Amino acid sequence: MQCIFCKIVKREIDSAKIYEDDDILAFLDVHPFSKGHTLVIPKKHFENIFDIDKDILQKVIIVTKNISEKIRDSLNADGIRLSQSNGSVAGQEMMHFHLHVIPRYKDDGLSSNPVTTSHSNLADFEELKKLAEQIKIET
Amino acid sequence: MQCIFCKIVKREIDSAKIYEDDDILAFLDVHPFSKGHTLVIPKKHFENIFDIDKDILQKVIIVTKNISEKIRDSLNADGIRLSQSNGSVAGQEMMHFHLHVIPRYKDDGLSSNPVTTSHSNLADFEELKKLAEQIKIET
Repeated sequence: MQCIFCKIVKREIDSAKIYEDDDILAFLDVHPFSKGHTLVIPKKHFENIFDIDKDILQKVIIVTKNISEKIRDSLNADGIRLSQSNGSVAGQEMMHFHLHVIPRYKDDGLSSNPVTTSHSNLADFEELKKLAEQIKIET
Repeated sequence: MQCIFCKIVKREIDSAKIYEDDDILAFLDVHPFSKGHTLVIPKKHFENIFDIDKDILQKVIIVTKNISEKIRDSLNADGIRLSQSNGSVAGQEMMHFHLHVIPRYKDDGLSSNPVTTSHSNLADFEELKKLAEQIKIET
């Protein structure tokens, strides 16, 4: 069975896209912890921080910074939590490297333990697509 | 009052150092979530992901990858959680950019909500220094 994130990269599965270039894709998490919860991934399949190419990782982190700024400005987020898991014991569920950009809001109701690995509810996909338009960064 | 992490950079406060170069410092967290919990910081004071220089951020993430590999190999960690908070609402307590490298072990007793913002107990500093020797990466 093929990796779901690889399928998203190949557009075999639709996503609410925030950013795309030759190496990097960013899209809204369908199980968001908060409004604007985004995943930044390399297009090429790497499993984790151990096997990802260094130059691709450097691109991932710059896209992450740019998206963090855009989320702060476009959604008026009060803070951003970045999180990236390696290994199932660390909570990694999708075995394709992904970095979570989790907006935080004063009234978001998340506890002071903001990064859980349990799923939140599946978001309405049309709503996600509208939200993605707000955050979208042109290549 | 000066930033505590800036004081650590200037060696006015001692730390259990893992890595140091001209731009980056990594040291063991004195309130570790797990054995080998490391903080990677830029030596220059940036508050968060929004204001950090892009080239410094790229150096931070490469050091983070190298330390993750070293922790996996030297401490036999089963996984690694990376976490980085921006803004007090996101759980940021030290207002100097820092990236958490949190080793996970099958038997570490951390829940599936592994990244809390509450303090764990203060570690024995001499023990931390010994542990740092195990993880240490030469520049």
